[in-house]
Amino acid sequence: MLKKRNGSNNPIGIFDSGIGGLTVFKAVRERLPFENIVYFGDTARVPYGTKSKETIRKFAEEIARYLKTYKVKFIVVACNTVSSLAMDVVRNVSRVPVIGVIEPGVKEALKTAKKGIIVIGTTATVNSHAYRKEIKKNDKNIAIIEKPCPLFVPMVEEGWADKAIMMEVIREYLLPFNSLDYDSVILGCTHYPLIKRKIQEILPQKKIIDSAKTVADFLYFQLKKNGLLKTQLKGYSKFIVSDDPKKFKKLAYELLKLKVGDISVYNF
Amino acid sequence: MLKKRNGSNNPIGIFDSGIGGLTVFKAVRERLPFENIVYFGDTARVPYGTKSKETIRKFAEEIARYLKTYKVKFIVVACNTVSSLAMDVVRNVSRVPVIGVIEPGVKEALKTAKKGIIVIGTTATVNSHAYRKEIKKNDKNIAIIEKPCPLFVPMVEEGWADKAIMMEVIREYLLPFNSLDYDSVILGCTHYPLIKRKIQEILPQKKIIDSAKTVADFLYFQLKKNGLLKTQLKGYSKFIVSDDPKKFKKLAYELLKLKVGDISVYNF
Repeated sequence: MLKKRNGSNNPIGIFDSGIGGLTVFKAVRERLPFENIVYFGDTARVPYGTKSKETIRKFAEEIARYLKTYKVKFIVVACNTVSSLAMDVVRNVSRVPVIGVIEPGVKEALKTAKKGIIVIGTTATVNSHAYRKEIKKNDKNIAIIEKPCPLFVPMVEEGWADKAIMMEVIREYLLPFNSLDYDSVILGCTHYPLIKRKIQEILPQKKIIDSAKTVADFLYFQLKKNGLLKTQLKGYSKFIVSDDPKKFKKLAYELLKLKVGDISVYNF
Repeated sequence: MLKKRNGSNNPIGIFDSGIGGLTVFKAVRERLPFENIVYFGDTARVPYGTKSKETIRKFAEEIARYLKTYKVKFIVVACNTVSSLAMDVVRNVSRVPVIGVIEPGVKEALKTAKKGIIVIGTTATVNSHAYRKEIKKNDKNIAIIEKPCPLFVPMVEEGWADKAIMMEVIREYLLPFNSLDYDSVILGCTHYPLIKRKIQEILPQKKIIDSAKTVADFLYFQLKKNGLLKTQLKGYSKFIVSDDPKKFKKLAYELLKLKVGDISVYNF
C-alpha cells in the first residue's frame, strides 16, 4: 500500500533551515543520479539551532506537511537540529521512511575514532545530547565532548565562509580543543562541511567527520530495500525556499558550485 | 472617535525582531513611567535584517495584527529593518499612530554632524537606503556612507556582546572607516547600542548616535499632542516573545539590567 502510493518516480524530500542541507543534497545527487529530489530550505526562519525545542518541532511539522504535497517517497532531514529534536514529528506527519543525519555521522566516526570524539553543532543539537546518546548506544567507553558553535550557521548563511574573520570565530570556539587527546571531530551541523578546511586548519591533528556521504549511502540502501529505487533517466532537482531565493542561489554557487536553476518560494 | 477607542490607559506597543528593541523600551520606560507598555520580540524568526523585503513586510503585518489584540494606542517600531521597509504596513493594519526609529536617529545625528555620516545597520536596512533618504530630506549636502553589519544581531542575540571576538567582528566591519574624515556614526539597528562602547573603541574619534532617547522624547510629544498621555499611576510592562523566553530573559538582564518578570509566548 505504502509502495503503491509512493512509487519510485516520486521525489525524495530533503530539507534544512537554509543552505547547509545542500551539502547532503550534493552527496545524494552524486550517489543517486536518477532520483527526483525536492529540496526545501527554510531561509525565512534560519537559524534553527539557537531556538527552542518547541519552535523547532513546530517548524519541522510545517515542513513535513508541505513536503507531503509533493508526494515524497522518502524524507532526508538534512539538518542536525531537526534530526536531534523532531524526527518523530517528521515521521508522524509524513508517513514515509525518514532518515536523519546523526546515525550516519556517528557510524562514520566510530569507524576510526579511538581516543575520543568532539561533537560540534548548534546549541539546540548539543543541548539535546542526541550525538552523545547515539555514540553511547554503539560504544559505551569512548570519551565524548559536545561543543555548541552557534554562530557558524549565521556566518555561513551570510557568505562569510571564506572570510578571514570566519577563521577567528572558529579559533574562538575550537582552539582550546587542539591540545586535547581526542582524535575525531564530528561536524554535527550540515552547514559545517562548508568550513571544513578552516576547521581542519585549527585542529590539524584531528580527523574531521562529515556525514553527507554516509547519509547518501544509507539512503541508497534504504531505497533499495524498500523497492523505491529509481534506476533510469536522470532525475530532476527542485529547490524551494521560504525567503527571497537570490541569496540562496548565490551561496549555492559560491560555496558548493551548485547551479540550482529556478527556485520556488513557499511561505508558512 | 480614535481617542475614545484608544484611551490613555491603553498600552503602547513596542516591537522588534528580538532583544534589540529593549534599548528603545528602556528609554521609553524611563521617559514615560506612567505608560503601560506591551513589548513583542519575534525571537523565533530573528534575525530580520538578512531577509527579504517581502518577508519582513509579512512579519511586520502579523505583529501589527497581534498588537491590535492588546488595543494598543500607539506603536513604536523599535526595529530599524521594519522601520525601513514596512512602516506603511504597520500603519495600515494597526490604525493607530506609529513611529519608527529612523527619523529620530537622523534628527539626532544632524544636530552635530558636519563632515559626514556613516550609517551602520542590517543588510535590509542599508539596501532600503531609508537613512540616506531621510538625511537627504534634511541636509542635501552632507556626505553619507551606509555600511551593512549583518552579523552584529546574531552575535548580540547569542550573548556575545561582551566577548573579545565581538571586537574582532566590529573591527572587520568598521576599522576601514576609522581613517575617514566623517564625524558621525548612526547606530541604524536597535541591537547596536548594546555594543556601543566597543564600536566607540574601534572608531574613537567619531560621535556615535543612538536614537533610543530621541525616540522616547518624540513619543512623549506625540502622545501629549494626541491627548493620549497617561499621567498617573506607575504603568505595567508586559513582554511577549515568539520563542522560548528563557534566553530573552537572561539577555535582557545581562545586557540591559532589565528584570522582565514573566514573559508570554505567542507563535504565529
